[in-house]
Amino acid sequence: MFITFEGIEGTGKSTQIARVREYFEACGREVFQTLEPGGSRIGRDLRRMLLHVDNREITPITELFLYLADRAQHVGQVIRPELEAGKVVLCDRFADSTIVYQGYGRGLDTVMLRELNEVAVDGLWPDLTIVLDIDPEVGLKRATLRNIEDGKAKEEGRFEAEHLSFHKRIREGYLTWAAFNRSRMRVVDASGTPDQVFAHIKAVIEACETDEG
Amino acid sequence: MFITFEGIEGTGKSTQIARVREYFEACGREVFQTLEPGGSRIGRDLRRMLLHVDNREITPITELFLYLADRAQHVGQVIRPELEAGKVVLCDRFADSTIVYQGYGRGLDTVMLRELNEVAVDGLWPDLTIVLDIDPEVGLKRATLRNIEDGKAKEEGRFEAEHLSFHKRIREGYLTWAAFNRSRMRVVDASGTPDQVFAHIKAVIEACETDEG
Repeated sequence: MFITFEGIEGTGKSTQIARVREYFEACGREVFQTLEPGGSRIGRDLRRMLLHVDNREITPITELFLYLADRAQHVGQVIRPELEAGKVVLCDRFADSTIVYQGYGRGLDTVMLRELNEVAVDGLWPDLTIVLDIDPEVGLKRATLRNIEDGKAKEEGRFEAEHLSFHKRIREGYLTWAAFNRSRMRVVDASGTPDQVFAHIKAVIEACETDEG
Repeated sequence: MFITFEGIEGTGKSTQIARVREYFEACGREVFQTLEPGGSRIGRDLRRMLLHVDNREITPITELFLYLADRAQHVGQVIRPELEAGKVVLCDRFADSTIVYQGYGRGLDTVMLRELNEVAVDGLWPDLTIVLDIDPEVGLKRATLRNIEDGKAKEEGRFEAEHLSFHKRIREGYLTWAAFNRSRMRVVDASGTPDQVFAHIKAVIEACETDEG
C-alpha cells in the first residue's frame, strides 16, 4: 500500500505521518517512510538545489524538471523496491505537489504536468493521497513557529518565503485537483488537534483498506 | 543565429567550435560560446551529477529529467538573452543529444523525447545543427588520447566508459535523426584533418546564411 500526504506548509503532515506509521506498525505491518524532494541519495542533492533560497534564479521549467528527476529516481530506486518487499510506503509529498505548486502556483499547464508526471512515476500512482487542508494564514504561522523551535536553517525556506497569496493559490489548487481525483485523493480538515485530525485520517485509511480487501 | 554542434566523443567538436568562433569574429560578429550540460550556474552542478562515474545508480528517466533541467535553465537564463543581445550563439551539444543518447542510446521513446524537449527549449530550436560524424573506434581513440594529454580527471567519463556498441548506436542514432531533420541538421564527415573538416562546416554555414538572408 502506497500512501502520500499533501498540503501547504504548517498542516502538520510530519506529525500525522508519524501517527499513521504507528497505526500500521501496531497492525503488524512493516512501514517505509520517505519524502520528496530528497528521497534518494541523488534526490538529496536535488533537494538542496531546489529549496535553497539563493537559487531564486531557477526558472519555473527548470524547477519542474528537477522535481521530476527527484521523483523518477525516488520511484525507481526506493519506492518501487520497498513496495515489492511488501512494505507500506508513506511519502511526504509526491506527484500532486508538482501539479499543484507548478500548475496552480506557478501557472504551468496542468495537463502537461500530469503527462510529465506519468513519465516520472512510470505507472506508480499512490493507492491513497491524503490532502491536509488548512487556512494558509494559520498554516504559515504554525510553520514559522516550528522553524524557530527547530532552529531550522533559513536557507531551506524558498517556498515559505513566498507571499501569502501564493499559498492561497496552492490551497485552492489542492482542493480543485482533489475534486478531479476523488477516487484516490481525500481532503482532511487539518485545523483541529492532532488527535482529531488523526481520527479522520484513520477512518479514511480503514475505508480504503476495506475497498481494497 | 543559434548553431549547435553534435556528435560522439572524439569528433573534434571543441576544435571546430573554436574555428567557427574565429570565423564569425573575423566577420565582425559577436559570439557567445557555451555547452551542455553545464551552461548555467545551476547547470554546472547538474553536469557534475550527470557525468560523475560514481553516479551509475541514476535511472534513465532521472538522467533524462536532469538533462532537461539543465537545458531549460540554459535556454532561459543564458541562450535566449545572448541571442536577444544580437550575438551568434555556438553551443556544444543541445536537444539533439538528449534525443540521440536517451532515445537511440538508452532506448527511451524518441517521440516522447521530442515532446519533452519542446517544453525545455520553450520554442528555441537551433537555426543550424552540425553533426560531426566519425567511426566510433576512431573517435574513442582520439577521446582517450585527448583525456590523457589533458590530464582529465577520470570522474568525468561516464559516457566514455560505455561499451563500443553503445557509441555505435549513438552514431547510427545521429545519422537517423539528422535524416528526419534535414532542414536544420547537417552531417559533416569528421575523419579528415581539422582544416578539411572546417572547410566543410564553413560551406554549410555560408549556405545557411544565404538561405536566411
